[in-house]
Amino acid sequence: MTKSLGKVYIVGAGPGSKEYLSVKAYSLITQGEVLIYDALVDDSILELAPENCLKIEMGKRGGKVSTSQSEINSLLVEKCRLGKQVIRLKGGDPFIFGRAAPEIQALIEAGCEFEVVPGISSALAAPLLANIPLTDAVMSRAFVVLTAHDIEALDWEKISQIETLVILMGGKNLGEIVHQLLRHERIPETPVAIIQNCATPKQHIWIGNLSDIAKQTYAEYLSPCVIIVGEVVRLRDYLQKN
Amino acid sequence: MTKSLGKVYIVGAGPGSKEYLSVKAYSLITQGEVLIYDALVDDSILELAPENCLKIEMGKRGGKVSTSQSEINSLLVEKCRLGKQVIRLKGGDPFIFGRAAPEIQALIEAGCEFEVVPGISSALAAPLLANIPLTDAVMSRAFVVLTAHDIEALDWEKISQIETLVILMGGKNLGEIVHQLLRHERIPETPVAIIQNCATPKQHIWIGNLSDIAKQTYAEYLSPCVIIVGEVVRLRDYLQKN
Repeated sequence: MTKSLGKVYIVGAGPGSKEYLSVKAYSLITQGEVLIYDALVDDSILELAPENCLKIEMGKRGGKVSTSQSEINSLLVEKCRLGKQVIRLKGGDPFIFGRAAPEIQALIEAGCEFEVVPGISSALAAPLLANIPLTDAVMSRAFVVLTAHDIEALDWEKISQIETLVILMGGKNLGEIVHQLLRHERIPETPVAIIQNCATPKQHIWIGNLSDIAKQTYAEYLSPCVIIVGEVVRLRDYLQKN
Repeated sequence: MTKSLGKVYIVGAGPGSKEYLSVKAYSLITQGEVLIYDALVDDSILELAPENCLKIEMGKRGGKVSTSQSEINSLLVEKCRLGKQVIRLKGGDPFIFGRAAPEIQALIEAGCEFEVVPGISSALAAPLLANIPLTDAVMSRAFVVLTAHDIEALDWEKISQIETLVILMGGKNLGEIVHQLLRHERIPETPVAIIQNCATPKQHIWIGNLSDIAKQTYAEYLSPCVIIVGEVVRLRDYLQKN
């Protein structure tokens, strides 16, 4: 008897709702034998897996201790070697701040079959679902995407010069983000949108500008959220039903 | 008898293959009554529409005359007013250089129901499918996305300072893009990847750097393609099967 070959699919779960999963991701999840998922993946997506699928949560929300990367790597290799179809599910897109690289390297080293499946990143979906186009022929010919969980690591002088900014993982550091942008020549009237829990029933949107957004959201727990900075936020008023 | 209400869905068709459509886009297309689509949408996706669906192509490839924006707007409003479920299908994501705004404004003015459905943008999917992560904890904390069909309109001094660039619609202007980046302090050894026809059987990838990529692709017709500039291109060697 030949042993069935295992394979690991590193799959983007999209921004939240299962309707924004890709057809391929949907098909893989509904046939998965092992599902290893991040805490941010929505329950409605996890429920798509077959009843006999082994589901394992990796990482915790809100600063609690996470499973170490090497433990995750070992688990992926172990389940693959058992001949399983393993779905490694990550919020959004696996290659946008998804820390997929160490897992892929571990799979290559172990000689495991794998495939990466793109997903809709909340960096793009959150503004869309808030009626904010990131691009515009006049006011936004380029946009920059960054993660702001480590403010000090970023070169704000360069970043602040791009007309439109999409900031992930910036909820806890909003005050510092505003401070850096004002310090680097963005005017206080620059519009800001914060989209929390995009593509879920809990989606919430705050609209303001660099001078008032921190005050407006004072004492709110914003994570997980996408922060949009730039004139494109104003387009929202022209692109939504009255 | 009440007249059935029409609705226009402005839908992202994703990067190419139908397996990267969202579940929602798939469901809408397979039930559509009118499908109005851009030339770049793959045939395999158009074939998902029901047999009795009216399919109308908008815009032409390769510089031929396009249908005017006002004609498209009128068509959307007309079909919606006939009570139809209209699918307005755009390559990638509708809000990433998708020129969706004028269509939405026309629908709002006409009082038509509409909804925008995100898609996987080739800006993110093309690098992923070429095994290039746009982000990395050390070498790419931010990436900028731009369209380069109009080189002169862009502020290259600012753009070139971001570590990773994702350039859409730049195939015809590759020489000029390279020139601008070298002029603005990017070193000739900066890695470049060009991914043509991503997520289709015709996908083709060129890897080089700012000093040799134009020569390497000389006399090639590159469009449609996504150009990646930055150190992350090197990660490809560590993230693909041998």
